[in-house]
Amino acid sequence: MNANNQSPPAAGSADDRYVVGVDFGTLSGRAVVVRVSDGAELGSAVHEFSHGVVDQTLPGTGERLPPDWALQVPSDYVDVLKTAVPAAVAEAGIDPARVIGIGTDFTACTVLPVRADGTPLCELPAFADRRHAYVKLWKHHAAQPQADRINALAAERGESWLPRYGGLISSEWEFAKALQVLEEDPQVYEAIDRWVEAADWIVWQLCGQYVRNACTAGYKGILQDGAYPSQDYLGALNPGFAGFVKDKLEHPIGRLGDRAGGLTAQAAAWTGLPEGIAVAVGNVDAHVTAPAVQAVDPGQMVAIMGTSTCHIMNGDVLREVPGMCGVVDGGIVPGLWGYEAGQSGVGDIFAWFVDTSVPPDYVAEADRRGVSVHEYLTELAAQQSVGEHGLIALDWHSGNRSVLVNHELSGVVVGQTLGTRPEDTYRALLEATAFGTRTIIEAFQTSGVRVEELIVAGGLLKNAFLMQTYADVTGLPLSTAVSEQAPAVGSAIHAAVAADAYDDIRVAAAAMGRVNRAVYTPDPERAKAYEALFAEYTRLHDYFGRGENDVLRRLREIRRKALSA
Amino acid sequence: MNANNQSPPAAGSADDRYVVGVDFGTLSGRAVVVRVSDGAELGSAVHEFSHGVVDQTLPGTGERLPPDWALQVPSDYVDVLKTAVPAAVAEAGIDPARVIGIGTDFTACTVLPVRADGTPLCELPAFADRRHAYVKLWKHHAAQPQADRINALAAERGESWLPRYGGLISSEWEFAKALQVLEEDPQVYEAIDRWVEAADWIVWQLCGQYVRNACTAGYKGILQDGAYPSQDYLGALNPGFAGFVKDKLEHPIGRLGDRAGGLTAQAAAWTGLPEGIAVAVGNVDAHVTAPAVQAVDPGQMVAIMGTSTCHIMNGDVLREVPGMCGVVDGGIVPGLWGYEAGQSGVGDIFAWFVDTSVPPDYVAEADRRGVSVHEYLTELAAQQSVGEHGLIALDWHSGNRSVLVNHELSGVVVGQTLGTRPEDTYRALLEATAFGTRTIIEAFQTSGVRVEELIVAGGLLKNAFLMQTYADVTGLPLSTAVSEQAPAVGSAIHAAVAADAYDDIRVAAAAMGRVNRAVYTPDPERAKAYEALFAEYTRLHDYFGRGENDVLRRLREIRRKALSA
Repeated sequence: MNANNQSPPAAGSADDRYVVGVDFGTLSGRAVVVRVSDGAELGSAVHEFSHGVVDQTLPGTGERLPPDWALQVPSDYVDVLKTAVPAAVAEAGIDPARVIGIGTDFTACTVLPVRADGTPLCELPAFADRRHAYVKLWKHHAAQPQADRINALAAERGESWLPRYGGLISSEWEFAKALQVLEEDPQVYEAIDRWVEAADWIVWQLCGQYVRNACTAGYKGILQDGAYPSQDYLGALNPGFAGFVKDKLEHPIGRLGDRAGGLTAQAAAWTGLPEGIAVAVGNVDAHVTAPAVQAVDPGQMVAIMGTSTCHIMNGDVLREVPGMCGVVDGGIVPGLWGYEAGQSGVGDIFAWFVDTSVPPDYVAEADRRGVSVHEYLTELAAQQSVGEHGLIALDWHSGNRSVLVNHELSGVVVGQTLGTRPEDTYRALLEATAFGTRTIIEAFQTSGVRVEELIVAGGLLKNAFLMQTYADVTGLPLSTAVSEQAPAVGSAIHAAVAADAYDDIRVAAAAMGRVNRAVYTPDPERAKAYEALFAEYTRLHDYFGRGENDVLRRLREIRRKALSA
Repeated sequence: MNANNQSPPAAGSADDRYVVGVDFGTLSGRAVVVRVSDGAELGSAVHEFSHGVVDQTLPGTGERLPPDWALQVPSDYVDVLKTAVPAAVAEAGIDPARVIGIGTDFTACTVLPVRADGTPLCELPAFADRRHAYVKLWKHHAAQPQADRINALAAERGESWLPRYGGLISSEWEFAKALQVLEEDPQVYEAIDRWVEAADWIVWQLCGQYVRNACTAGYKGILQDGAYPSQDYLGALNPGFAGFVKDKLEHPIGRLGDRAGGLTAQAAAWTGLPEGIAVAVGNVDAHVTAPAVQAVDPGQMVAIMGTSTCHIMNGDVLREVPGMCGVVDGGIVPGLWGYEAGQSGVGDIFAWFVDTSVPPDYVAEADRRGVSVHEYLTELAAQQSVGEHGLIALDWHSGNRSVLVNHELSGVVVGQTLGTRPEDTYRALLEATAFGTRTIIEAFQTSGVRVEELIVAGGLLKNAFLMQTYADVTGLPLSTAVSEQAPAVGSAIHAAVAADAYDDIRVAAAAMGRVNRAVYTPDPERAKAYEALFAEYTRLHDYFGRGENDVLRRLREIRRKALSA
């Protein structure tokens, strides 16, 4: 597959060198073969995880899983190495001997219990029937009670690391998930030698070395200024948890872009790549995207926009931004502070609307025109002036990750009349997510972290009206990723650095990254008109989100009670 | 057509006497033939207005009407007398000579300018091309600027009649509409001899007498304690308006149920009814329904539920209820205070949702089952426990008539998630209208006007789940009208009283009205569960409706500006 928006790469010369990037997503893994000299994408392949997301029944036993559980099976990850990597190399039509490195990125916090040699507990016969022995996927949300206690105790004790995470540790992260294992299956907990991010476990499989990457260790593992939460704090959470860091978590840290080790003979056999080539330190799918879009300097915010949006940005100053996901030293690029924020629902809100709220005549008309319902609604919505629909929506249908950090929140639509049409509400939902992004940007700006450019990657790039709306609402120039597989390309760039083809990530990004600069710029008139709507959004955001009226949280509670009765 | 839920009437005996009721709606007029002795409905017929609602172009000239205009053509009303009345008599199979009276009811405030002899100005060649010469239908909303000034000045001067209307005079009523004529077409205004409710104009056509009915004179004409707004007040509104009451409005009042006159030879020829029979004083469609459902005592609130809901109730005390539409001495039954309130959007909110927000698979499934989409959604919604959907809606998609009296308000839906299904939101909208009714009931109770029973008439009666929800939410026993054409039956009852077949409306209602008592009673568990949801509704109602956050009004303003740019 060739990259978009650029000429097809020239036929490879015999001198060309290549790197492989592998992006592990929620349902599949994608490998891409990239030319070291210029970042040209020469071939790619996808492998779907055969177990997908395990959220109904445990493989083998068929045991029914409780609500909010989401597991994975680690052998699915290895299958990606065995199938997608050779397939991508074959599609590229290159000599595998010219590949000098491999890099990977992963969803996070996706974490698993392993023995000292890296064997997942779920692969041991004694634990194969224990649900806590499996990989806990990022969206495993069953450790909320543990997260609540972690936060309450940290706030009470004034733990210094808490503000680095905007004031809240997520139930998705390493500590809450580990504490859940301890409290629900002490035998499994006891058997854990290492509590490992999948991002690091896959690197371990490739190079035979466990190297803990600086990104997940910081964002998901609460490693700040070289220290984890103290034994004293952990013991206060649960006496049995006091030794967690010392016994199961702490491990030497690898800088992003560094070489974790050389490809083992076994991994070389799986992938068809040369033994001994550089294997890059692991990384997170969002963070690894930054070099792929040349966003390695302060002020450049990358938004990876798909079902949800992840925002990452480098900063040259350390600031505590209320409601951000975290700030980590070298969390994106060594030498800079890496900031992360996010919107937990974006494309999936639009998809929900299209699936549940669009009447047959619209669907038929879209069909007649040969466009998707999204495209048809967008076309209608784009004809409107700002404010014409008379609506304001809050984009919390999947909760709010930043800046409120509250997954008990839900959606709000205000202003519907008997004249409101589907394209009106659709447009209001698009705008709501843009307002959500602006809210995050303002939180950064207000805290002294400047944001000067918005660089978008991900599937929603294809909606030009949405992109223009983001420019109009944020008032920022909006640049766009060239590659449709920017995370995999980012991993390939890390591989090139790990293989010493470039001095550092910044230099490699300049040579191999691809971005179209300022494709969308704010229209002054629309930007002005959006000010009034954003003011209304902010007022409703604070009313429903900051405790003035906790109706959304109470409705969740009422709903839970009604369903359990 | 026979009445529902009762045995077919026995074949008419030669001694039977009959009355005819005619209900003039927004799009058509319906006549019904009723037996005097027991209220049995023997025949009915409908005539659609050939001009319908004139809201696009003026008949004849084709002149384009401005937004918010809604006119009618008076000859359409006479056509109902000429066609529907004889057709109903024919269907009843009775001897027309046995008909002893005719009664009518009308939408209100539907009002027209006429000469001294009752000729509508629009029927004079000199005025046929002037839009202000036509009937202004109840939903003509273009006099809002006049209404705003009427209210501001009345409040400023502390006019004593203002609290009788919950504090606000509607743009739909007699004064605002007349002032609009004066200010936009002084020549038409000058030519007006009488500014007449259509409810009285049709009686004038039947009996040759202009009798102003106590109901519209009170509710729509600001007649309180025998007086209209003063000349001084009117002159302050507009010097040319000072003589409005004296010159064009005031006229002897007819009590409800009284005889306005005898059927003229001409009207006898139109209708095929005997010349000289009693013609009852005019009335309003909602108010005339009370005797049809035997709701003539204090504490019995009648809700006529269709696209919108009108609430009417008799009280033995005079109280000023904030946000009610009005309280009028003898406004429903002579000798009691007649109270009116309303919800401007009910069935039309459900219809809007079904038309714009239900996806193809639901429509197909309803079709497969041979039920309407409303029925299918109701069936799904009815399976849920109270609060299970996690939603709260505000039922203001068509504004709020009571108790906020604000047509700039709009709908709100709170709590949607990616798991929210169409039946969830549909149920939330049904519940929102029940909460709206409860809000009105509580306004009455709090003001010292007791409400002990809810009696429902109108098209929404057929939704049993909706009815049960109203009982659960209000905590009141819910009785239901037997007749599907209760207003026309109410008019027939008034005709029987006017013809002296009964001493008064109360006695006639007992003999001729039909109600199924306490068909739905509150389920204690659901009623309790709804308390929590109603508390949330009330909090949002007050937040969005009482000035704490005027976002809905501002969104209207933004919308108007965007559309006019």
